[in-house]
Formats: sequence, structure tokens, C-alpha cells
Amino acid sequence: MNIDVNINCDMGESFGIYQLGNDEAIMPFITEANIACGFHASDPNHMMNTAVLAKKHNVRVGAHFSLPDLVGFGRREMKVNKTELYNIVVYQVGALMGFLKKLDVPLSHLKAHGALYGMASRQEHVAEIIADVGDLFKVPVLGITGTKQEEQCKAKGVEFKSEFFADLDYDDNGGLIISRVHEAVDPEKVVEKCLSAIKNGTILSVNGKELAVKAETICVHSDTPNAVEIAESLSTALKQM
Amino acid sequence: MNIDVNINCDMGESFGIYQLGNDEAIMPFITEANIACGFHASDPNHMMNTAVLAKKHNVRVGAHFSLPDLVGFGRREMKVNKTELYNIVVYQVGALMGFLKKLDVPLSHLKAHGALYGMASRQEHVAEIIADVGDLFKVPVLGITGTKQEEQCKAKGVEFKSEFFADLDYDDNGGLIISRVHEAVDPEKVVEKCLSAIKNGTILSVNGKELAVKAETICVHSDTPNAVEIAESLSTALKQM
Amino acid sequence: MNIDVNINCDMGESFGIYQLGNDEAIMPFITEANIACGFHASDPNHMMNTAVLAKKHNVRVGAHFSLPDLVGFGRREMKVNKTELYNIVVYQVGALMGFLKKLDVPLSHLKAHGALYGMASRQEHVAEIIADVGDLFKVPVLGITGTKQEEQCKAKGVEFKSEFFADLDYDDNGGLIISRVHEAVDPEKVVEKCLSAIKNGTILSVNGKELAVKAETICVHSDTPNAVEIAESLSTALKQM
Amino acid sequence: MNIDVNINCDMGESFGIYQLGNDEAIMPFITEANIACGFHASDPNHMMNTAVLAKKHNVRVGAHFSLPDLVGFGRREMKVNKTELYNIVVYQVGALMGFLKKLDVPLSHLKAHGALYGMASRQEHVAEIIADVGDLFKVPVLGITGTKQEEQCKAKGVEFKSEFFADLDYDDNGGLIISRVHEAVDPEKVVEKCLSAIKNGTILSVNGKELAVKAETICVHSDTPNAVEIAESLSTALKQM
Repeated sequence: MNIDVNINCDMGESFGIYQLGNDEAIMPFITEANIACGFHASDPNHMMNTAVLAKKHNVRVGAHFSLPDLVGFGRREMKVNKTELYNIVVYQVGALMGFLKKLDVPLSHLKAHGALYGMASRQEHVAEIIADVGDLFKVPVLGITGTKQEEQCKAKGVEFKSEFFADLDYDDNGGLIISRVHEAVDPEKVVEKCLSAIKNGTILSVNGKELAVKAETICVHSDTPNAVEIAESLSTALKQM
Repeated sequence: MNIDVNINCDMGESFGIYQLGNDEAIMPFITEANIACGFHASDPNHMMNTAVLAKKHNVRVGAHFSLPDLVGFGRREMKVNKTELYNIVVYQVGALMGFLKKLDVPLSHLKAHGALYGMASRQEHVAEIIADVGDLFKVPVLGITGTKQEEQCKAKGVEFKSEFFADLDYDDNGGLIISRVHEAVDPEKVVEKCLSAIKNGTILSVNGKELAVKAETICVHSDTPNAVEIAESLSTALKQM
Repeated sequence: MNIDVNINCDMGESFGIYQLGNDEAIMPFITEANIACGFHASDPNHMMNTAVLAKKHNVRVGAHFSLPDLVGFGRREMKVNKTELYNIVVYQVGALMGFLKKLDVPLSHLKAHGALYGMASRQEHVAEIIADVGDLFKVPVLGITGTKQEEQCKAKGVEFKSEFFADLDYDDNGGLIISRVHEAVDPEKVVEKCLSAIKNGTILSVNGKELAVKAETICVHSDTPNAVEIAESLSTALKQM
Repeated sequence: MNIDVNINCDMGESFGIYQLGNDEAIMPFITEANIACGFHASDPNHMMNTAVLAKKHNVRVGAHFSLPDLVGFGRREMKVNKTELYNIVVYQVGALMGFLKKLDVPLSHLKAHGALYGMASRQEHVAEIIADVGDLFKVPVLGITGTKQEEQCKAKGVEFKSEFFADLDYDDNGGLIISRVHEAVDPEKVVEKCLSAIKNGTILSVNGKELAVKAETICVHSDTPNAVEIAESLSTALKQM
């Protein structure tokens, strides 16, 4: 079998002296780093350092943009109109591209963070704007299959990559069960779940219901306590596939 | 006589609902807009709107970056090391380039704002870093002739453009006399002073002492009360030169 | 007739070098200043200066707290939980009280700003938290009669003062018609409307429908273009009442 | 021997989802918590939670205020004038007092953070302003003996408490040797050094030179890796003294 599945991870989410995640340990096992752009996490130093680390490991770099909310880590929904959302996202992606220019690394993809990711799944105008930014930078947008985000990307001719969450459970409606603090998960079960998602296009919900899913890129959260172990197990499994 | 002298103006310094300067009225009379990048003023909306306005008037767009200090409008000196300064500046220039990409407008130049402008004149490490960013984006850096900024640009092979201040007085040492609030100035005297700077390379200090100056680009501050009038008078005079 | 009706105005909404409203001109004509606390507008300097100005004119000082959103001037709704909302509000009120302590001026009242004001009218948990802060500082809460805010204040034994908006129109359901930029209004009509509100407890909606209202304190917005004129007319009319 | 020496610790320096220090583990062993006020670290939630924790352990609460610099953790010097500094400090202390009011806990003391602490030691105008705020809130100011801060407090009749740093080395001039990241230190040696400081008023510099010191309160940094162990050892030693 020859499937090219990526492993993406939200990276560079430290801020000033505050450390979050273990980017150095995880980077060797992923293929795509979603680098925070300073609106929910990160700052110019962490962005640059994370981009340098990604380049060292031949990991592609995408922009992980957010609503402007450092205190809330971008997890609080805000009402933003289309114009300001477009400008907020372009600002963040552009800022990241400054560092990529220095490193001669191309921008790989876009991925909304936190509350904005959820809004992009459900709200057409949010999905539309993010697709517009994908069109501007000519890069794919990551999201969940079956959402407004997929719909809008397709409508605008922007590449959409379906993301599957390695370390989160799904409810019976295919919704993600997100806790404020991510918990450790069993790497074996994660690998099994991901391989099922990739090969069969199905997984079981938290209640055992079969769900149709699509997994072009697997997301590992760097703040899941055993994120490194999960990324390594997944990386090994995908290479053996 | 055929001299190509630019008129530059700090633009896009509004923030949220707060308006500063009269960008719409001034834009027709300048050739280079230095657009604030969100660290001392501006926000993604104002940056985009100002870039749109500049494009409409065929005005070139440069990045007007700053120390991170919205409350102090970038006018308070901060101790920053070279690494963080480089990253702070790249972040801001990159962010602006996101909007320029959308508008298909090239970045024209770099100009430090406020306290950082002064630091770049006097402190070698600051001047060096800004020259490095000029080198990264392959654009000239604006500054005052005879300063560390000019020195470092020349040392690194980065184009340096000497800036002359239309609406500020110079002390006997060639230093700028900067007040917190800019005051209205007589447009005729401004034109006379600028023409002397351009043609003769000399002006009189506030005490009547002859000073050697260099004027490749004339700066008009948009928060000088009669900034529009000054820009218009200068624009007319330079075209007739 | 002897009715004690206050005139309140949102004050101290400048930020850094940005000026908003004409506090010095309006202050002589109002009885209550709602001072912004740094989350949607203002900063420590403007808070102190505004409190000094209020004291000079024997104007009472209330805290005008907001969601944390300087770029959006507190006008964008955010999802905040009860705990963080309580802490956000206490932080802001406490900060203002620091300045009041210096001036030996008591805190007079609380008034939510912008999006939070609307949320407090409609959302029980928001109204409850603001009432809790009113209880903590033992001051009345300003709001609109018939709202969740009034309900929660009454339920918790916190004094509630019904606010009537001098410079806004009301729709047929009693809702405020709020534009992003306030427009000038006719002072005579404003006075007439306010006197009707105070004496009769009724006004006409924008479509001419009679509405029941309650006016214990009249709000004048400082960013209404002719705010000073309105405040002065109202002040005169209320004294003659 | 009956000496009443305090142990103070900078607390509540987490921010949003970012954790810093182990406040819960250290709190039982200290007598004074210096709570960050949101300008270099902390946010309304962390301030409240830390104040609750302090109250639970009968630990006194002081305000640990800073220059406005979250990204730089208040460790970058900024030029601020006296008026804005006074207002910045009053804002932060006031904000903390909002939470203390809720908990019915009195404010115990003031302590500047990071770059501002150093500035207060060396710069008269900074020291003067902090003394003024101590006078406003009628609480002692913590600082190093022999500095401008002590001088200004004495000049203004504000109580000054000499602080001794348990986990930092002193150079031959009595200056603190501060690294960006605090390193683990030997608890036994720390206790020995502190007891010498308290009983003899002398310690040895990093080069073995005898230095005169004054230790009315011992500071333990919560981000020193073995801060809990140090605090516990010190607490035990001081009780046995």
C-alpha cells in the first residue's frame, strides 16, 4: 500500500518565557508543523526558532492563525466580521512568511486555531474567508471533512486537506470531544485508530458507533502529555504502511 | 534641474476606532507611504486600508516598524537584544507584505519608528539589525545621513536613503527637535528649507547655524496639524524644480 | 417637581496618544462619569486624568468595564465563562479604585461597556456576574429596565439604576439602534424625549410607537459629534425641571 | 533568639494556559506572596486564584507590579516618565486590591518586578514614584538595602523592608548575579547563607569576599527549579532560629 499521509502538529505555542509543548522532541516525527503566529500563542522569537527547527528536520511549515486572544489561547469565540477576519489572518500568515523568507522555506498550508477552527467548520462566512486566504497564498487549508471549511475551499478552488485527530475522541455525530487540558492517550490505540481512518475511512466513536472519517493528515497535539510517544508511534506505523 | 526627490509620510497610524492623521487627504501629495505595522499603531484593518489607498494613488509602500508599545506609540526606548529585535522587525515587515501580496504591490523600503528610529541612529547593534532586515527584503532603509544607520547599511551593502524632515527644526548639532505633539509649520518656509536641503545640501539650524544635510526623501509627519498643506506645497515645488 | 435625574457619560476613552471624545468640554454638564478601565479603551494615564477632571467638576465616578478587546473597542462579543468574567470585571474596577483612592473619591457605580453591556441585558450569567461585582463594591449597576441585568440585580439585592439613552433612537421593541459611528442629534428633540421619558415614562420609537421606558440616569455618548451641546441642553433642562 | 524574618516569593506568574512556578507547593512554606498584576505575567484568573491560595495558607499578599511587557516578562528596561510610572503602578496595585477586597485580605506590601526592580534600585525618579505608591496604600516597599529605593522610602516616611535573595549569588560589589533562567541551588548552602545574613548581617560574595547585607525578608524565586525544597528548608530553619 502506498499512501502519503502527513502528521501535523501545532508547534511554536510557547510565549515569552512560557514554554508549551516539547517541540524539539516531537519535530523529528512529524511532517507538517503548524506554527502559531502570535495571536493566540508564540511571539517573533518563538516563531523564528520553531521555523528553524522545522527546517532542520525537513518538516513543512504552515501558518496556525487565530483570533486575537493571548489570555484565552484563542479558545474563546469572538464575533468578527469578514473584513476584519480576512485582515487578521493575512497579517498572521504574512508575519510567518517573513521568517520563512529568511530561511528560504515555502509556506506549506493554513490551519485555523482553537475557537476559529470550530467557527470555520460551522460558519460559512468564516470558512469562506479562510479559503480566500488559502487562495491568496496558494496553499491548502487543513480542516475536517464534511464541514463548511471543506465546502468553501471546494467552491473557491482551494485545495482542502482532511485532518484526523489522533489524540481526541469523536462523539457519535463525528464531533470532537475537546477538553481544556489534553490527556495522555494509549499510543497503540491511537495508531490502530489512525490506520483504520486511513485505510477504511472509518473509526469508532467514543460510544462504539462507526463513523465515516477522512484522514489525509493526522493531527497530534503537542500539549497532549505523551505527544512525543504518539508522534513517534504514528510516524513508525505510517512508514511501515 | 532634474532631481528625483521623494516625499514620504508615516501613514496608517490609526488604531481600531481611533483615528490619527488624515491619510486620505495627504496621500495624493506624497510618493512613499510608511505604513505602521501594528506594534506602535495600526491594526490589520488599517494596514490593509492604507495599502489600498496608497495603491490607488500610485504611492510606494514601505514598512514603518516599531518597538512593541501601543500605549506609548513606540516612543519609549526599550532594551532589546539583537535576536529579538531582528525577529520583531521581520514579523512586522512580513505582516505588511501579506497585504501587499493581496494588492500586488511591492515593498518599497523600511523605516524605523519613534524611539527605534533614534536608537538606530545612535546604537550600532540596532542599526545593524535593521540593515540586516533591509538585506533580507532587498529594499532600502530610510534614515539620517551621518548616523550609525547609514554606516551599517553601507557596511552591509544595503541601500540607504537620506531623509530630511520638512516639519521639524534642527538644533545646532543637526539633531531633530521633537515635541510630543507636532505643531503647525509655515508651508512656504518648509518648501524653502527643503529646496535648500536638496539643492545646496545645507539648511539653517533653529539658531541660524548652517548645517550640512542630505535630502533624498523628505519626511512629512501626518500628525502635524497642517500636514496636508505642507505635503501639497512640497509636492508642487518638487515637481517644478 | 423634584426629580433627581443623573446625566452619565462614558469618559476617559482615549488611549495613549489617541484622543476620543471631548471630556473636558462635556464634564461640566454631567453628574456621573463612566471611566473606561483599560480593556476596551483608556490606559493608566487617561484613567487618572479623567478621574482628576471628574473630581474637579464634582462629577461622580463609575467604572466602565469591558471585555478585553482594545482593537475592537469592546464591541465584539466574546464567549467568556462566569469565573473569568468575574475576575476580568473585578480587575478593572479595582484598577480604577486605585486612582480614586489617590483622589479620595468614592466609586459611584458600575456600567458595562459595548458588547458586554448588550450581553448583560440578554444573558443571565453575564448579568449575574456583574450584579455580583456590584455587591462586592456596594455600588449600583446601570442598565436598561426590563433586562436580565435588572432582574439579576434585584435578585441579589444590588441597586439597579435605569438608564435612558439621550442620543440613540429606540426601535419598536424598545431596542437601541446603535451605529458604529454615532451621529449628531438635535438637542431640542433630545431634551424633549428625555423629559418625556422622565416625567411620563414613555417615548416614541423611531417609527412613532409609544414605548414604556425608565430614566433614572440619562446617558450621553461622548463620541456623538455634538455631545457637548446635548449634555449642556440636558443639564439646563433637568435643573429647570 | 527571636527574629521575625519573612520568606517572600513571586507568585501568580502563570498566564492564561501557561504555567510558571509551582505556587501550590511553595505557598505552605512562605509568609509573603508577591502576586503578579498582569503587566509582566498573570491575568485576572491567576491573580484571584493565587490570592485565594495565599489566604488559605495565611500568607500575606503584596503587589508585584511591573513595566508593561508580557512578551519580555518585564525584564526589558523601558524609559517611562514619573507620571506614567505612577499611574502604571497604581493601576496594578488597585487591580490586585479588587481581588483582595473580595477575599477580605489586606494588602501587605509592594515589590517591583524585573527590570523595574533594578531601575528602582539605581534611578531616583523610579524609586521616588514607588515610594509614593507605598505612601498611597500605606504599605512597606521591599527592596535592597543601600539603594535609591531605600533612600526614597526613608525620605518619604514609607516603611522599607530589606530583601535578601536566597537563590542568587552576589558579586563582590553586592550586586545580584541574575541569569535569564534560574538554576537549582543547594538548600543547605542557601539556609547557611540566609542565617548568616540574618544573624551576622554578612555573607560571602561569589568570590569569597565578605559583604554587608540586610535580611528582613528572604526572597525565593518560584522558577528556581528546586524552589519548593529551598522554601521548605528555609521555613524550617527560620522557625528553629
